[in-house]
Amino acid sequence: MTAPWQAKILTLFPEMFPGSLGQSIPGRALNAGIWELETVQIRDFATDKHKSVDDTPFGGGAGMVMRPDVVDAAIGSVEETGCPVVYLSPRGQVFNQELASELAEGPGVTLVCGRYEGIDQRVLDKRQVREISLGDFVLSGGEPAALALLDAVVRLLPGALGANESLNEESFSSGLLEYPHYTRPAQWEGRDVPEILLSGHHEKISAWRLAEAEKVTRERRPDLWKRYESGMNR
Amino acid sequence: MTAPWQAKILTLFPEMFPGSLGQSIPGRALNAGIWELETVQIRDFATDKHKSVDDTPFGGGAGMVMRPDVVDAAIGSVEETGCPVVYLSPRGQVFNQELASELAEGPGVTLVCGRYEGIDQRVLDKRQVREISLGDFVLSGGEPAALALLDAVVRLLPGALGANESLNEESFSSGLLEYPHYTRPAQWEGRDVPEILLSGHHEKISAWRLAEAEKVTRERRPDLWKRYESGMNR
Repeated sequence: MTAPWQAKILTLFPEMFPGSLGQSIPGRALNAGIWELETVQIRDFATDKHKSVDDTPFGGGAGMVMRPDVVDAAIGSVEETGCPVVYLSPRGQVFNQELASELAEGPGVTLVCGRYEGIDQRVLDKRQVREISLGDFVLSGGEPAALALLDAVVRLLPGALGANESLNEESFSSGLLEYPHYTRPAQWEGRDVPEILLSGHHEKISAWRLAEAEKVTRERRPDLWKRYESGMNR
Repeated sequence: MTAPWQAKILTLFPEMFPGSLGQSIPGRALNAGIWELETVQIRDFATDKHKSVDDTPFGGGAGMVMRPDVVDAAIGSVEETGCPVVYLSPRGQVFNQELASELAEGPGVTLVCGRYEGIDQRVLDKRQVREISLGDFVLSGGEPAALALLDAVVRLLPGALGANESLNEESFSSGLLEYPHYTRPAQWEGRDVPEILLSGHHEKISAWRLAEAEKVTRERRPDLWKRYESGMNR
């Protein structure tokens, strides 16, 4: 039995967790001991009597910035775990399925959730914190990004998916978007399931699905299509 | 007083909401009546005695697919609102700040959360459902994506941000990543705040921040940098 995968979340809103991670696939895996979730309240590391965690930015401007000393102490409290420390920030490397696999293969992750105005740069420099971005949009804090990132990672852990679930033939595992899905009823409101899927001819079905996956990728995501094509020509 | 922005979520896990949206900026805006959140349990629209919402895919393969009739009935129950119906799916248009603004300017959104194996294609075709993807990764369901998407949209609604918060000078609003932030203490563990930020010289500070934003964008996100540069040359 290997040790559970470790998720530690440094946040001003520990009550947001486990949230959606306490249900469905991630929740089942949490209950099964496949992974563990711990929250650390950053405010516990404030040293003044008002328990301040942020202050106005040097150089002026709107918003507050999280203090380097407070965040540093919070990171220091969990540093010995050997898991990468990741700051969720729009300035980071854009999260994708490859990065999810990479994190799932490690021992866990420590996620630092900031307010959207950000964390003092010096603590990121000192701790050599890795920055990951959920995408090119601004959230009110890192917490919703942490929920989504952990969901994507945790379902890749061995044993997380049930017998009826599969990691194969998914979007991105082949570099393509997924082919369309159909289930019962076979006839519905004058819309029939594509006949090939009812044929029982496995090879033809596979070929049809690949063609559909290629078509939707080419139409909707020229960026992915270009990468897929160049990979095929290697 | 304008009508509140309407978020409707069709899901098999209504208990995941409001979740993180009930706290901080989105939670404050929810309590202030700036937006409204309603969940619809898709299972309520199942018609058999087992309340089945999914079935095996035609053509074979792992996983279950959500039935067109059940999802169609759930969408039909909220369709009259005039809000766009969006299916959260890795096959969709990639969510970004521009799309967040577009949704915030409308009357609201109806989000359909599927299991990751997907929804029968025919209901997406019939309802002309718009597909949006949070990014190039696979989640266990649409719910974590809904939490992040709504967070990004809701904080753009008029009145959602407090006096100390600002939409200006944020990542992506200028097409650049944000410059680094610094706050007190000015000296910390031998790391000083850049001197220019203590100068009080607003023009020089602005120039420094722009240069830093350009530098980090060029280094970390050549894709954004290319778009920014070509915009400047127009």
